[in-house]
Amino acid sequence: MSHIDFVAVDWGTSSFRAWAIAPDGAVMAQHQGDQGMNGLAPAEFPPTLEAALAHMGVTARVPVVACGMVGAAQGWIEAPYVAIGDASHLARGAVKAPTGGRDVFVLPGMKQASPPNVMRGEETQIAGFLHSHPGFTGVLCLPGTHTKWVQMVDGRVHNFLTTMTGELFNLISRQSVLRHSMTDKGWDDAIFEEAVQTTLAAPETIATSLFEIRARDLQTGSDQSPARAWLSGLLIGLDLAGTRRLWGGQTVHLIGAPALTRTYALALGCGGVTAQGLDATALTLAGLRAAARQLLGAPV
Amino acid sequence: MSHIDFVAVDWGTSSFRAWAIAPDGAVMAQHQGDQGMNGLAPAEFPPTLEAALAHMGVTARVPVVACGMVGAAQGWIEAPYVAIGDASHLARGAVKAPTGGRDVFVLPGMKQASPPNVMRGEETQIAGFLHSHPGFTGVLCLPGTHTKWVQMVDGRVHNFLTTMTGELFNLISRQSVLRHSMTDKGWDDAIFEEAVQTTLAAPETIATSLFEIRARDLQTGSDQSPARAWLSGLLIGLDLAGTRRLWGGQTVHLIGAPALTRTYALALGCGGVTAQGLDATALTLAGLRAAARQLLGAPV
Repeated sequence: MSHIDFVAVDWGTSSFRAWAIAPDGAVMAQHQGDQGMNGLAPAEFPPTLEAALAHMGVTARVPVVACGMVGAAQGWIEAPYVAIGDASHLARGAVKAPTGGRDVFVLPGMKQASPPNVMRGEETQIAGFLHSHPGFTGVLCLPGTHTKWVQMVDGRVHNFLTTMTGELFNLISRQSVLRHSMTDKGWDDAIFEEAVQTTLAAPETIATSLFEIRARDLQTGSDQSPARAWLSGLLIGLDLAGTRRLWGGQTVHLIGAPALTRTYALALGCGGVTAQGLDATALTLAGLRAAARQLLGAPV
Repeated sequence: MSHIDFVAVDWGTSSFRAWAIAPDGAVMAQHQGDQGMNGLAPAEFPPTLEAALAHMGVTARVPVVACGMVGAAQGWIEAPYVAIGDASHLARGAVKAPTGGRDVFVLPGMKQASPPNVMRGEETQIAGFLHSHPGFTGVLCLPGTHTKWVQMVDGRVHNFLTTMTGELFNLISRQSVLRHSMTDKGWDDAIFEEAVQTTLAAPETIATSLFEIRARDLQTGSDQSPARAWLSGLLIGLDLAGTRRLWGGQTVHLIGAPALTRTYALALGCGGVTAQGLDATALTLAGLRAAARQLLGAPV
């Protein structure tokens, strides 16, 4: 394949995604797999990358710009966190991975000193957002396994919070006693919103309301199809209760998978706030393109 | 072995314990194992019990009185929940398990209709407590995988709450990203109490303070030995925030394993409440003895 300027790679904990980018910025080929950082020893990163690039028809001289957990201490090579601030110049903190010849640049994560916080991957999505919203002031929410709430001031990351909402939902719905009461189908927006309002108004109630899901099931054996929506609402309501000082009274830009940004937008509506969703993949790609311009002088 | 009046069995989700009781109430033999309800199909309960009894030297005619998850719908035979109220007459709700001849009585759990709640196993500990505290009015707390907070009035279970604190602690400390920041050693009471006070005063802060444990570790690489105490304190502080209407201003009797009742007593101290610990095993045995008296007319 000719006319590939660079390959953009989003290499996370449990996934790998790559896009071959033409000089005009177009995506010429893409590839995704489940070879995430968690399953790879350091020596396994180069062959994993090369196999993916070969599959995409990318030649040996095309450089790569990568973000995500690939740059964690447990990843391929550590790209140390840069301090919060300007997310438009992540390239300055990039680290070259050891390869047999190909240039592979790994972008850094961002850290906040106090209260301690870190992100790795989301900073690239923020960079992509800033490409279309230069000098942005406002609130970003990036929901996921670990949801990031980011206060932006004049295009800089001013401070941010992390909630473990997605990870808690997965652990509780799949591995706790509540797993017996979860069904795969049956989402109900009204049930979800009622649960959000419950923990948003009185966050301490989550201590006792979780087990009620199981107890109701055991006593009534009634239709449990809303249980998943209820659990999700309780946890996202707690998330919102703990992050209200960021989003209260603001307009929130949600960056994530469409289904998840829709869910958080519903929840924020319960808090009287309007939110609009942006697709995370598109912003990751925009952030990697911006970094590639700085690293490679690429014309994209 | 002669002079065995009955065998008391506490058959839980993941454990089996049996005590051979003499006519004077003395424990003549005991046995414990990990053949809990979770690992057994219904047909496996009789041989598991008989093997344990044979190991203890108990003859075929000695009856058994059992409590716990053995009586759940997924257990050996369902002993349907009885309504909250008098815990001194659990025997009335006992169910005889199908055996080749031996009398095996399974005690029921207790249920509360609204808000929905259930217990199975703890009701027998409460019966044991009532044996030494007849007509008790006050608050019991039975900490564990699922912690029960019970309001007793005139010796009756008036209402109760369940928190999933123990299960959440195990899931988060062993399976979430925080597992990387947990060490086996290093408990610190002062750290624990500070964490309790944090979520007791502002329960919504747990949404963001959990990930701070990991972020602090990643940034400083400093000594993480207090992380376990801090996580425990955050979760028990949330537990207490959600159950305050029961324990606030009361004296609490804690029924559980000694290490756990000590931990909850420390936490309750942060809420200005005095608590005393009672050993759960002794009370389980007292509750099973009381039921055996009613079922068998045994002189113990």
